[in-house]
Amino acid sequence: MTTLTRRSVMGGAAAAGAALLTSAPSSSVQAAAPLSGQQAPGWYRYKVGSFEVTVATDGVNRFKFPDGFVTNRSREQLNAALAASYGQPGPDMIAIPYCPCVVNTGSRLVVIDTGTGEANFKNSKGAAGQFQANLKASGIDRGQVDVVVISHIHGDHINGLLAPDNKPAFPNAEIMVPAPEWKFFIDDGEMSRQSSDRMKGVFANFRRVFDALGRKVTQYEAGKEVVSGITAVATHGHTPGHMSHIVASGNSKVYVQADVTNLPIFVRNPDWHLMFDQDAQMAEATRRKVYDMLVAEKMMVQGFHYPFPGLAYIEKAGNGYREIPVPWSPVL
Amino acid sequence: MTTLTRRSVMGGAAAAGAALLTSAPSSSVQAAAPLSGQQAPGWYRYKVGSFEVTVATDGVNRFKFPDGFVTNRSREQLNAALAASYGQPGPDMIAIPYCPCVVNTGSRLVVIDTGTGEANFKNSKGAAGQFQANLKASGIDRGQVDVVVISHIHGDHINGLLAPDNKPAFPNAEIMVPAPEWKFFIDDGEMSRQSSDRMKGVFANFRRVFDALGRKVTQYEAGKEVVSGITAVATHGHTPGHMSHIVASGNSKVYVQADVTNLPIFVRNPDWHLMFDQDAQMAEATRRKVYDMLVAEKMMVQGFHYPFPGLAYIEKAGNGYREIPVPWSPVL
Repeated sequence: MTTLTRRSVMGGAAAAGAALLTSAPSSSVQAAAPLSGQQAPGWYRYKVGSFEVTVATDGVNRFKFPDGFVTNRSREQLNAALAASYGQPGPDMIAIPYCPCVVNTGSRLVVIDTGTGEANFKNSKGAAGQFQANLKASGIDRGQVDVVVISHIHGDHINGLLAPDNKPAFPNAEIMVPAPEWKFFIDDGEMSRQSSDRMKGVFANFRRVFDALGRKVTQYEAGKEVVSGITAVATHGHTPGHMSHIVASGNSKVYVQADVTNLPIFVRNPDWHLMFDQDAQMAEATRRKVYDMLVAEKMMVQGFHYPFPGLAYIEKAGNGYREIPVPWSPVL
Repeated sequence: MTTLTRRSVMGGAAAAGAALLTSAPSSSVQAAAPLSGQQAPGWYRYKVGSFEVTVATDGVNRFKFPDGFVTNRSREQLNAALAASYGQPGPDMIAIPYCPCVVNTGSRLVVIDTGTGEANFKNSKGAAGQFQANLKASGIDRGQVDVVVISHIHGDHINGLLAPDNKPAFPNAEIMVPAPEWKFFIDDGEMSRQSSDRMKGVFANFRRVFDALGRKVTQYEAGKEVVSGITAVATHGHTPGHMSHIVASGNSKVYVQADVTNLPIFVRNPDWHLMFDQDAQMAEATRRKVYDMLVAEKMMVQGFHYPFPGLAYIEKAGNGYREIPVPWSPVL
């Protein structure tokens, strides 16, 4: 530690005047660089054939999970799994990321799911509601978005359809919703038959968001392209009309799964039933079918609730699966 | 797909004049958003106690690996391991990331290792040599760096000490090099005893870089702090004086390992001897000792050759270990 640096000399000059230039001791004059306090903007881009996929995180929500959060496992079992998965906040707390993505097919700019909404940025003290800010950081103008494809109508997927003023967050975009999902949740009879507060809330939030949009949506069916190169796949169970999307260009594909699983701990434990799975048995059957296919086809999956950037390959592991994150590429 | 969007109408207006505003058909006027072609800047920040650690990737180098790249395993075994690890370019090719990092202790701004050098950006067509650009993107001014700590003198760790004009890349920084590393590589007798072209090249590159710096360095010893909060650890084997660094603040620690392992496949297979390990037996013993400690202490490791951002926890797995990437936090 004997080297006088040019900076320490210059720091000395600034602090004490030019007369001290040659004698300022290193230890007393070196100024501290300020701490930044800033995280990197949360976006990542990759190619699928000629398409560009941009993941722009909406953030991470931390909350105390209620009893029955995993309906067929105990609080202790969930706590043990969370502790073993690292990066989780601690007993009885869970951190869930949100990773919406955008596909530029070259002729259409397509958002798939929208996050918790900009209004939530303030409510969550910046923890979530980041999607629009990260989208902007990635160079994407919300006004250029042609289509917003919704996988299912839970709040963390649809709330971002609205700006804080309840105007459309993507002012020029067609909004596409799975036909069976729309049919179920638009049905006042279905709504009246709900007994749980949570499900009543899901119906109410659905109406809040889509009423603000004048219920102006395009319904889409499984097995068909929502836009050229993006095919809807029926992955019902989590909700009655839940859909996933295969983005394909050239020889390349990615499976945008939405909520086929939630966090990776549910990839490891596909038989664990999260309280958000409306038909838990169907959700589990869907999960195993999709994940067996991802393993067999060695297809990349884009996980809405995986840690950012949420892109992985899947392997079999024990009674379940393991996600292998795709290495970050520093070039596109 | 029946909804006319405001954008399609506006596109029509721009293309064909205001008179067509109400009749422009959606299909013919919707302009394509341009593909971006840009990757996100490659930096990520996390806290260690009150310190900020910023990882800024230098990029990824892809190359055809030579015979004997893993000295005690066949080409076929290496190819099989690379194929099983995903994200690798294919037979006989390997992709190796470089993840230098910067620690802001609040009173010192400390770069740990420097990447392949800015001059390499052009040579590699942008694949590597990105460290300075990503550092700048993260808001860090190279002129504010107080100290550069070098783990060992291989080119991908020291070449970034020089700007393309062979002037210091960190003009105001003290440069710290492990004392046993300096002693070995500065020794003309050691140089004269080298028989392999690779080792002759290592010595020559060492002289190229440090001669340009006037051999003006501070030598540091294992077991001592290089700056307050950053302690050098002897992890010899990869090179005679290879050092790692424990960054500690409050109750939090991260182990900045440098080349204790290279890619994660060598985490899985700690008994595989990479040709860059100068004393392969010592390197393996060091690797096992360090990784057993990381498992026992549940300490995070920052891997220079892990995929960006290179931060992970370590678990035992079979005869080796497995890295569990720390989930990306969208807030600092």
